[in-house]
Amino acid sequence: MLTLYDFMGSGNGYKVRLVLAHLGLPYRLVECDILKGETRTPEFLARNPNGRIPTLQLEDGSHLFESNAIIWYLAEGTVLAPADRRARAETLQWMFFEQYSHEPFIATVRFWKHFLPRLSPLQEMELPGRMEKGYAALGVMEHHLARHPYFVSGTFGLADIALYAYTHVAGEGGFNLDAFPHVNAWMARVAGHAGDVSIDRRN
Amino acid sequence: MLTLYDFMGSGNGYKVRLVLAHLGLPYRLVECDILKGETRTPEFLARNPNGRIPTLQLEDGSHLFESNAIIWYLAEGTVLAPADRRARAETLQWMFFEQYSHEPFIATVRFWKHFLPRLSPLQEMELPGRMEKGYAALGVMEHHLARHPYFVSGTFGLADIALYAYTHVAGEGGFNLDAFPHVNAWMARVAGHAGDVSIDRRN
Repeated sequence: MLTLYDFMGSGNGYKVRLVLAHLGLPYRLVECDILKGETRTPEFLARNPNGRIPTLQLEDGSHLFESNAIIWYLAEGTVLAPADRRARAETLQWMFFEQYSHEPFIATVRFWKHFLPRLSPLQEMELPGRMEKGYAALGVMEHHLARHPYFVSGTFGLADIALYAYTHVAGEGGFNLDAFPHVNAWMARVAGHAGDVSIDRRN
Repeated sequence: MLTLYDFMGSGNGYKVRLVLAHLGLPYRLVECDILKGETRTPEFLARNPNGRIPTLQLEDGSHLFESNAIIWYLAEGTVLAPADRRARAETLQWMFFEQYSHEPFIATVRFWKHFLPRLSPLQEMELPGRMEKGYAALGVMEHHLARHPYFVSGTFGLADIALYAYTHVAGEGGFNLDAFPHVNAWMARVAGHAGDVSIDRRN
């Protein structure tokens, strides 16, 4: 059986839980408290040398890490992943956009504000720039979603899951999404696909 | 014909030029000076709403962005991309590692030190943490390369190209790679595959 090492508040982990639920794949869940350093122990680093959740242990005992690589692996050949070469590339385009231009700003600010008791002086200094870049990412999404119901090929898929994970909890980082009506409408559509899977509860 | 919008000093652009050269694909090159804001003009934003190079214009006039999505698109079905599902996921794992845990530290520090006339006060404050995370990424690579000649399946491929792009110019950011012998040996192997394609000259 698959074993998922995860932290329930993580949007990156949520992506994997959402795909597993969609595909009806059974798995064992091992919760790791990243706030207590449980992903930096020698035992965990033997699973993922980069010391991060989500990390997926496959049936053969080997491990796969990086949320977007894990969901790509799980979804290949299913309705969540495109069968067309160009659509695959567009899916990856938005998934790399998510990890480079969205997550380090929207997810990091949410982590700072939602999970840390207080910000360090450096975090306080970085905050305005991180917020600005987070809003820039939301602007890129708004621009695309004004003309498309989902990110790729007009259908719900991996790119939507990757971008929904932290966008739907951006408010926990203090982001106000009122100025992004197409992002909000898209989130409502994606929520319909997400079913009962929530970011911080076991389902 | 393919048209590549690129900045010659960019490692992200270099990945695409390296793959195009490997596959012998002809393309037109349009240089964009990111230091002069040439990727933030209305004309460029119509190509890539995220305002970044590399951006690839395909034969049909549409565009693809995000370096790792572009090289995935170009390399599918070639020797540079794995035919096996698990190897594909591992390739993406290392490509997402590159964009999340490597590029924002090693490439950003190089950009600050190599291309900017001086660092801002905030950049000066961020520098030690960025250097530390860059060295952490090199440590993860060293750990893997101590047991593998290349990142995936023992053969040269997309994951190597993605990680080589900024690792081989890390010195321009002040990173000292003496403590990473397996990374150095891997770089020498990859350089053998890179041929005449260099990061900042047209080839």
